Amino acid sequence: MDGSGEVPLYRQIYLRFRQSIADGQLLAGERVPSVRALAAELNLARGTVEAAYQLLIGEGYLQARGPAGTVVAPLLQPIARPSPMTAENTIAPTLVHSGAVPGPLQIGLPALDEFPRKLWNRLASHELRHSGVDGLIYPDSRGDAGLRAAVAGYLGVSRGIVCAARQVFICAGYPGILDLICRSLLKEGDQCWFEEPGYFLARRFLQEAGAQLVPVAVDAEGLNVEEGRRLADDARFAVVTPSHQSPLGVSLSLPRRQALLDWANRKGSWIIEDDYDSEYRYQGRPLPALKSIDNQGRVLYAGTFSKVLAPGLRLAYLVVPEIQVERFAVMADRMHNHCPQLLQATVATFIRNGHFARHLKKMRSLYAQRRALLIDALHEHLGERLKVDQQAGGMHIVGHLPAGYDDGEVAEHARLLGLAAVRLSVCYAGSENTQGLMLGFTNVASAQQAGEVVALLAKAISSAAPVPM
Amino acid sequence: MDGSGEVPLYRQIYLRFRQSIADGQLLAGERVPSVRALAAELNLARGTVEAAYQLLIGEGYLQARGPAGTVVAPLLQPIARPSPMTAENTIAPTLVHSGAVPGPLQIGLPALDEFPRKLWNRLASHELRHSGVDGLIYPDSRGDAGLRAAVAGYLGVSRGIVCAARQVFICAGYPGILDLICRSLLKEGDQCWFEEPGYFLARRFLQEAGAQLVPVAVDAEGLNVEEGRRLADDARFAVVTPSHQSPLGVSLSLPRRQALLDWANRKGSWIIEDDYDSEYRYQGRPLPALKSIDNQGRVLYAGTFSKVLAPGLRLAYLVVPEIQVERFAVMADRMHNHCPQLLQATVATFIRNGHFARHLKKMRSLYAQRRALLIDALHEHLGERLKVDQQAGGMHIVGHLPAGYDDGEVAEHARLLGLAAVRLSVCYAGSENTQGLMLGFTNVASAQQAGEVVALLAKAISSAAPVPM
Repeated sequence: MDGSGEVPLYRQIYLRFRQSIADGQLLAGERVPSVRALAAELNLARGTVEAAYQLLIGEGYLQARGPAGTVVAPLLQPIARPSPMTAENTIAPTLVHSGAVPGPLQIGLPALDEFPRKLWNRLASHELRHSGVDGLIYPDSRGDAGLRAAVAGYLGVSRGIVCAARQVFICAGYPGILDLICRSLLKEGDQCWFEEPGYFLARRFLQEAGAQLVPVAVDAEGLNVEEGRRLADDARFAVVTPSHQSPLGVSLSLPRRQALLDWANRKGSWIIEDDYDSEYRYQGRPLPALKSIDNQGRVLYAGTFSKVLAPGLRLAYLVVPEIQVERFAVMADRMHNHCPQLLQATVATFIRNGHFARHLKKMRSLYAQRRALLIDALHEHLGERLKVDQQAGGMHIVGHLPAGYDDGEVAEHARLLGLAAVRLSVCYAGSENTQGLMLGFTNVASAQQAGEVVALLAKAISSAAPVPM
Repeated sequence: MDGSGEVPLYRQIYLRFRQSIADGQLLAGERVPSVRALAAELNLARGTVEAAYQLLIGEGYLQARGPAGTVVAPLLQPIARPSPMTAENTIAPTLVHSGAVPGPLQIGLPALDEFPRKLWNRLASHELRHSGVDGLIYPDSRGDAGLRAAVAGYLGVSRGIVCAARQVFICAGYPGILDLICRSLLKEGDQCWFEEPGYFLARRFLQEAGAQLVPVAVDAEGLNVEEGRRLADDARFAVVTPSHQSPLGVSLSLPRRQALLDWANRKGSWIIEDDYDSEYRYQGRPLPALKSIDNQGRVLYAGTFSKVLAPGLRLAYLVVPEIQVERFAVMADRMHNHCPQLLQATVATFIRNGHFARHLKKMRSLYAQRRALLIDALHEHLGERLKVDQQAGGMHIVGHLPAGYDDGEVAEHARLLGLAAVRLSVCYAGSENTQGLMLGFTNVASAQQAGEVVALLAKAISSAAPVPM
């Protein structure tokens, strides 16, 4: 700072921020330091920084988001920028995870307003006080023993999976699980069946790890196993989401499950079962996990606490066949596959004391309501302009756009209006794809909010209409 | 459990554990569930499980370690098993990080008895209560904004490094940093100078990432830059530990620093500066970081909170040149490079409020004392049988064994006696190496303890003597 007094200090700060935003050094949605932190860093009075921030907020450069801090206004982002999802643009300034609070309709996020905060804080504080040296040393690279046992118990009761705690590995989210699997089992160029459409982040991860992905069509019964066998009978992996296909939401039928297992048993191939949100089903009874009928140990079963508790915990789990336990243990150790013990132990207590089962039950009924709110609003405001799939479960619904629409354009307009809708076509690897949107309903808290959000969505769809409406 | 009453329940549990240990399903050092957790899982009275555990402890199968829980006795491990460090044995049951409390002389670990637990718990609890949705959503994949700012501030004051918060990336430990660097900049087959001897875990990580390592000798002035240029002038990377060479402890001299930078500037190569424990120096003044004289942006600077706070936090940081900020941000986002926000925010407050500087100062003087305790005991009990290097800093000392000794054998004997000494030869890639031991002194809390530990070490050395003594 220039202390000469010619330009007031608060204005110098204001100008610096404006310049940084203009230069692209500060990105849209990026959190800026708190007033207190910046004042301490610059050795200035808080009031000075406060004045600068007020000016920036007043002029629309920054947005105050209460407890989530202050961020660079999302609308300042130029519309023409390429999406970071498209493979070629390895250097793109739009980050998926910038730490900013996601906008309405964000997929894959549990209800933030219903997280059992008080209970959680009590358990975590207790753990903090009583963990001894456990919280200080390198944690077990396979995961906290108590959490591994709790997960094994939960899977036995809820998902029909019989496994020992030693078969359970804790990783920092699904990418951590894929990394552990790839480093343990994948060889460069191994063929891998991948659902078409499928979960785009997993697809990219596997590609970068050296897998040769074979897109296999998904229909009303889930992954078309016959097609997979026709395209690549010798594939070494198949990645599937049998409970709710991601993104379409269908269940893998029982005959298909059997056919998939038969194939893997015969070929000695590996099935990666991503059971990311099987807990949420609103009609009918859930099928047990594919893993529960895997009697020859070909299924690597992945689940996560991101959807049922919070992604901020960075905790997911993997169940490996008994015969692979040592290989995975050694690889986890090599990768320094450590998750902080505090959070693991707190989740273990949360499960052990029965809070987890209660929380799931509560969320299941809440999400059924919120899902209905969003579907009703979509029918009312959008009608034929967005045809809604009625799937049995999950945390988002899929809406199909009429012919002629570009879902990337619709999603971009939605984003500029502050919504977090994701285009469906991003889930397809091939050029044949469906134009639509994935819309998360877990944080749609009221009919009024649903109406407001859908009104914005209607606006985005109109803005992207192929002919003037 | 068989409830027929023919075999008492506690004895059934006892037999199961014995069998699991014999089968290798439970590994030496592995933590077993708490009495409470196991009783809950099996739906038995705690007293029943307690009785089984007491029997197992009494017979030496398990060891009770107080607050660290109960573990499978380390001595049960067969001596003949190959070390997991040797490249070929990808399936080896001995884990570096099993979650068990390390034995005396463990390297790379701060003083566990001096961690400011009360203060830490207070800050973490405050953060828990006040973090809003920040602790629930996906954290910023680049790191918490507050922590990045605090690290930038700390590095400016303490290490002479001028950088903006946006150049700082937070990763889950040094392996996370290497992973981010490799995915951002490394191409398969890129040549990389690596200190000989050097940090063995980093060497393995880089090899597995596809780097072609070029071992470059370390002498009293640190890495021999001339030799590096002679062996591989076109190398794309050089990994160095300029403050305290790992493992030998020497400092990279100023002329060598300049030569290294000149080479990187001319060639457009990258220097990875691993400044893992520069905070601890007991004689003379520390040189500023290599990064502080890097005026062309060729140095990637890595530091960690593992050595100065606790490895259990899983927090390390990387400073990248301004021009690389976007590339690294996109890659961190792709890798889902998230660390839990709670711990990041707590460390940020810890730094901002001045606790960090105070803690470092306190540890510096404590470690100087503990180092002296260990060196005195080594001189007294071992004399010429272990020649101690007198280096200026760090958290371990290096002892050289007389000719004829195999340091792997000595370390193995030490391990069977419960010590955590690591053999020096593991740090060498080539066949020419030095036989010695790395001995951590940070947890040697008294002269008495130093004496006891060194007596055990003397026993281990005697047991591994090349000729009967």
